[in-house]
Amino acid sequence: MLNFDFYNPTKLMFGQGRIADIAYEIPRNARVLITYGGGSIKSNGVYDEVKAALTGYEVVEFGGIEPNPLYETLMKAVELVKTHKIDFLLAVGGGSVIDGTKFIAAASLYDGDPWEIIFSRGTVVKESLPIGVVLTLPAAGSESNHRAVVSRKSMNAKISFYSNSFFPRFAVLDPVKTYSLPPTQISNGVVDAYIHVLEQYLTYPVNAKVQERFSEGILLTLIEEGPRALAEPMNYEVRSNIMLCATMALNGLICAGVPADWSTHMVGHELTALYGFDHAATIAALLPGMLKALKDDKRLQLLQYAERIWGLKEGEEDAVIEAAIEKTREFFAAMHMKTSLSELGLTADNIPEIIAHLKAHDMVRLGERKNVTPERVRQALELSL
Amino acid sequence: MLNFDFYNPTKLMFGQGRIADIAYEIPRNARVLITYGGGSIKSNGVYDEVKAALTGYEVVEFGGIEPNPLYETLMKAVELVKTHKIDFLLAVGGGSVIDGTKFIAAASLYDGDPWEIIFSRGTVVKESLPIGVVLTLPAAGSESNHRAVVSRKSMNAKISFYSNSFFPRFAVLDPVKTYSLPPTQISNGVVDAYIHVLEQYLTYPVNAKVQERFSEGILLTLIEEGPRALAEPMNYEVRSNIMLCATMALNGLICAGVPADWSTHMVGHELTALYGFDHAATIAALLPGMLKALKDDKRLQLLQYAERIWGLKEGEEDAVIEAAIEKTREFFAAMHMKTSLSELGLTADNIPEIIAHLKAHDMVRLGERKNVTPERVRQALELSL
Repeated sequence: MLNFDFYNPTKLMFGQGRIADIAYEIPRNARVLITYGGGSIKSNGVYDEVKAALTGYEVVEFGGIEPNPLYETLMKAVELVKTHKIDFLLAVGGGSVIDGTKFIAAASLYDGDPWEIIFSRGTVVKESLPIGVVLTLPAAGSESNHRAVVSRKSMNAKISFYSNSFFPRFAVLDPVKTYSLPPTQISNGVVDAYIHVLEQYLTYPVNAKVQERFSEGILLTLIEEGPRALAEPMNYEVRSNIMLCATMALNGLICAGVPADWSTHMVGHELTALYGFDHAATIAALLPGMLKALKDDKRLQLLQYAERIWGLKEGEEDAVIEAAIEKTREFFAAMHMKTSLSELGLTADNIPEIIAHLKAHDMVRLGERKNVTPERVRQALELSL
Repeated sequence: MLNFDFYNPTKLMFGQGRIADIAYEIPRNARVLITYGGGSIKSNGVYDEVKAALTGYEVVEFGGIEPNPLYETLMKAVELVKTHKIDFLLAVGGGSVIDGTKFIAAASLYDGDPWEIIFSRGTVVKESLPIGVVLTLPAAGSESNHRAVVSRKSMNAKISFYSNSFFPRFAVLDPVKTYSLPPTQISNGVVDAYIHVLEQYLTYPVNAKVQERFSEGILLTLIEEGPRALAEPMNYEVRSNIMLCATMALNGLICAGVPADWSTHMVGHELTALYGFDHAATIAALLPGMLKALKDDKRLQLLQYAERIWGLKEGEEDAVIEAAIEKTREFFAAMHMKTSLSELGLTADNIPEIIAHLKAHDMVRLGERKNVTPERVRQALELSL
């Protein structure tokens, strides 16, 4: 096991009806900015519950944070924070709203050019406004971690950054609030969480038995519950398990003391920035090809994955690994995801510009061994067509 | 899954050489009280590393905190805190030192009779001095939770209490620092952690798939690594896995959203208070009999435990459960634990006084269903002889 720090002070408030409890967590005299996305919270009752819970608070609202939140949009919220002297941010939504709110929290207190927050990968951040979360889309894990991803339209850039000041003070996880999600978002969320785990699990072994078994527990649960969530959209237990999986997949627990890959995510971010695909759509289409291209580096963990997750252990190693990758692809397909770049409408002709963008963003040594060069990404993209 | 709050702000600093990093976590102007136990830290190098890390701090020491720490002892440390205007406590040791330090932290700031802190089960605690931990004995999990157990000699009492102010600010977990532990303490620690998990896992099912699989991951790892820790006392990877298991077994993670039992622990505390046995010795001797007595209440989880942990699923349900309990007992025996009350030197004649003490401490409705009455404990004790 590698040396590690694990720190996660976010309080999870899990279960039906928990939005009512947020007032216990927000200082009584706080001026609160509610941030949200496209407005689904106004049709599914979440907005009304939040407003009721905040009775007596001075509340300002900022809606319209888009998927893959844009720097340009978020800067408008920063103005609003300054105008209204906001001192608490309540993000109501999924990963995009929460990520965007983390940027707003830091930019509102930052003296220099706010783009430096993102461009420095968060290293210039010294403090942020406190954030609370009401989660409506289990997927990104942003509700209980210190990371954010923000895009800048004018640069075709999508960049990940982090700061310990980004940990939300609390996150309400009410599975009922996910019933009204469209099936596409459930599929995206389950597959996003699944690949988050694989990025932290399919590397090289360091004898971290607890973390590996925690990862396997999340994977097995997503495999069982993902298709059920599509078939039984109002099954509370199924939605509960998925919601907790998504949080545990990216709260720092399963990556403590182990190597991490993230190359599929980094390449996926470029596909979103270039072509506007949903985040989960990019990584579902990329992962099988990435694993095929990197299978020698990941051999031992792939064999363990094949056995413990898919029950595959008989036969030649390469055949077992191929079968496990195919099972993974079939799971994504069962979640109604496209599992190749061609299904997304891309061809070999797109590969050069994807590689060019990776290089432009200095993504030239990816993966747990820092050996995933643009050339190896090119091979993976060809295997992903 | 049941509704839950999960909150754990302790920063884990894991790995070889991490004691050197504690100065980054303690305010530069703090007056630090180092608390410790019988003095083994002075022979195994831990004390020297801690002192070196605290160069430049004003440091006072309080040694001699005994296993099952006594109120009477801890009150002497409270005097020392007040005399020296201590504002940071650094617990260097295992569960007893950490638990005792949590009491010192609260009592030092408490206006009334300090016994009220314990007697109220912590509910009167409003604030505590900040605590840091250097862990030397992986077992109790106290290094990253908000619970403590303290005994009072004059009352033959051993009482558990808690407060959110008890979470240590940080906990250094350096597996190398466990190499010098005597085999008995390794055995005690592994079995204590294992039973912590079972108290949170062997109840009734609430479809909490993630928490159950996390629990199973800890159990499987302890079964693999426990005997190896005895056979290969300087195997870093083995000690790492055990150390992380013990922390994860009792940091609030696997009990989030599920019922919890703790009846074996409550009865075990009475055995320690009455006869002075090691904590782990009491629960290892009690658990097989407790599970036999409560097997109908725990049937579904016992069957899952039998299958997922011990690979037992063929045959009559009762036979499968009996076999799983026997496998558990054999694991404890392989860890060189005594697995019955008679091996501890107790007989049926002791049962009435154990029951009387449970009643005196109001332990009359134990277990996940609050239906473990003194009469059912009596049956369990008879099955544990």
